[in-house]
Amino acid sequence: MSTSGFKSALDLARLIDHTLLKPTASQADIGILCREAIAHGFWSVCVAGTWVATAHMAVRGSPVKVCAVVGFPLGNASSTAKAAETAAAVKDGADEIDMVINLGALKAGDIDTVTSDIRNIVTVAAGRPVKTILETCFLTDGEKRIAAKAAVAAGAAFVKTSTGFGRGGATVADVTLLRQAVDAGTGVKASGGIRDLATATAMVAAGATRLGTSASVALMSELAGGRPKTADIKSY
Amino acid sequence: MSTSGFKSALDLARLIDHTLLKPTASQADIGILCREAIAHGFWSVCVAGTWVATAHMAVRGSPVKVCAVVGFPLGNASSTAKAAETAAAVKDGADEIDMVINLGALKAGDIDTVTSDIRNIVTVAAGRPVKTILETCFLTDGEKRIAAKAAVAAGAAFVKTSTGFGRGGATVADVTLLRQAVDAGTGVKASGGIRDLATATAMVAAGATRLGTSASVALMSELAGGRPKTADIKSY
Repeated sequence: MSTSGFKSALDLARLIDHTLLKPTASQADIGILCREAIAHGFWSVCVAGTWVATAHMAVRGSPVKVCAVVGFPLGNASSTAKAAETAAAVKDGADEIDMVINLGALKAGDIDTVTSDIRNIVTVAAGRPVKTILETCFLTDGEKRIAAKAAVAAGAAFVKTSTGFGRGGATVADVTLLRQAVDAGTGVKASGGIRDLATATAMVAAGATRLGTSASVALMSELAGGRPKTADIKSY
Repeated sequence: MSTSGFKSALDLARLIDHTLLKPTASQADIGILCREAIAHGFWSVCVAGTWVATAHMAVRGSPVKVCAVVGFPLGNASSTAKAAETAAAVKDGADEIDMVINLGALKAGDIDTVTSDIRNIVTVAAGRPVKTILETCFLTDGEKRIAAKAAVAAGAAFVKTSTGFGRGGATVADVTLLRQAVDAGTGVKASGGIRDLATATAMVAAGATRLGTSASVALMSELAGGRPKTADIKSY
């Protein structure tokens, strides 16, 4: 365990948003996800809007929070739609919002649109932490820095690397860049492709303060010294 | 041209929803898409919510319609969020709505949820045609038939095969199945992976009444007897 850099299993577990976003996931799958999160002490479960109320009921009375994704995974819904989706998630019991930024506006240099889109969600989230998914696989380093600064200016609590549905996931280089681009009070969530302890450890060493993964149970098993175990629920 | 089965270029063009949904598409890209649609006489442009107002302005005064995607591409947003997204698209000028069904509910056999989700969108669309994307690559043949019947029961105008973001796109077998599963008054839209005239022709022969593709300009060029031309705008 010493090589992982995590002093205890809970040190790792409390960093994890235990994630299930595949489109065919059922209510039963969400129930399993929530029981796993409670059993291992994960920070949260991260689910799609249609499952927020189910997850909220399933984790009630435990410290496990519910993250809801918004504008996911393409980020090109209208800002009005994203805000309404956020409001519905909040009503259903979401504690945190993981929203995908407007990548087309960012690519075109229309930073005002990127910022106002995030600010709309932050406003509707009403104090709940908002994580802004930059989908770094599509961005230049310059665009990543601009997006991170827009997120901070708009009141986001976290910048987050990836949806897990794009061409690539979190990299140590991107986490390092994002950590440097935002102030110490802003979190950095590494997500996408984190499937073993070595990767999780490297992301935290690079400055990640939250990890999004669907391989959470496998990570905990590996940390406990067992053989890496395949997660019960496959990702998309 | 006789081998294609299309009597004229316009016969093909009027079947096509000219599509650009990649998350990094810019306002300029949407402008090109709309100009291409007007020039070739495509039925519509199919865009994400953030671009509906832009597209509506760009095709004004032409016969080209605007399709807006909803709950795209995973279908697991809450029904409240999908309905709000539809309302925003309608306000921005959408003529048709292409929505992804709740695949998790379908997989779990919760057909009431699948149907009510579609009905919510049909209601908000207020007479505008709603196409229900089944994302057939994830479904058994039985699930495809059940979903098609739910779509018809909920008042959808079309059943549609694919988002283009899943594991697979339209197949002749699926178009044939859907054509048999719905009444003659319900349209069948084939989408995903239609990149050449042979495929487009096969889909129409199998019963497709609409084609969704981002390779529309290449198809027209091929029909005109030119060399297959790479589309100006790449798909995701």
